[in-house]
Amino acid sequence: MEIFHYQDVEAKRAEKGTFGVMVRWLITKEIGAENFAMRLFEMEPGGYSPFHGHPWEHEVFVLEGKGIVVDEKEERKFGAGDVIFISSNEKHQFKNNGEKTVKFLCLVPYTHEYVRAH
Amino acid sequence: MEIFHYQDVEAKRAEKGTFGVMVRWLITKEIGAENFAMRLFEMEPGGYSPFHGHPWEHEVFVLEGKGIVVDEKEERKFGAGDVIFISSNEKHQFKNNGEKTVKFLCLVPYTHEYVRAH
Repeated sequence: MEIFHYQDVEAKRAEKGTFGVMVRWLITKEIGAENFAMRLFEMEPGGYSPFHGHPWEHEVFVLEGKGIVVDEKEERKFGAGDVIFISSNEKHQFKNNGEKTVKFLCLVPYTHEYVRAH
Repeated sequence: MEIFHYQDVEAKRAEKGTFGVMVRWLITKEIGAENFAMRLFEMEPGGYSPFHGHPWEHEVFVLEGKGIVVDEKEERKFGAGDVIFISSNEKHQFKNNGEKTVKFLCLVPYTHEYVRAH
């Protein structure tokens, strides 16, 4: 068993194409998670992720803040307690259009080498 | 993309051996999640899960409340913002020894038929 507070995991600048976004890789293959990884994102007001797609899904739970999430068909508001599922290859973008930091969990499967490389 | 509030998903009594525990299956294979499922547990004060093990891991994020988690070696306190990883086949038990409902996310891989059957 491993137990720790999320703030005990280093926050790193999220990858290229994001603005004002930090990520903490909370549960990874390094501690024995073979199937999927848990990350926590912190997005400052005005921050965003790129509008992009990739061949793995996202399972998201919004912890704090308000923002919008965009796909190719629509733009939806989100807030604390919302659950978001982005299918594999579905283009998507998260934006913080609120006044507080947005915090959300975003889990990804270790089915692709690109994810395993993190 | 799917987006909904966690409270819009029905809470069901958690399985045999639990006491005072409700579960909402938030993200499942039914909405296209092929690799892992996101569930949200609500455990009332005095509630617990059985001390048990199984061949799949748990990735847990504590949203609210305080409790203890037990494995074969130790007993640890947990609270909001804590991250818990239970390895496959590691025996474990969650207990709410606080005065408020404990809420936590617990994600499981679809690597076993038992999980897929839910």
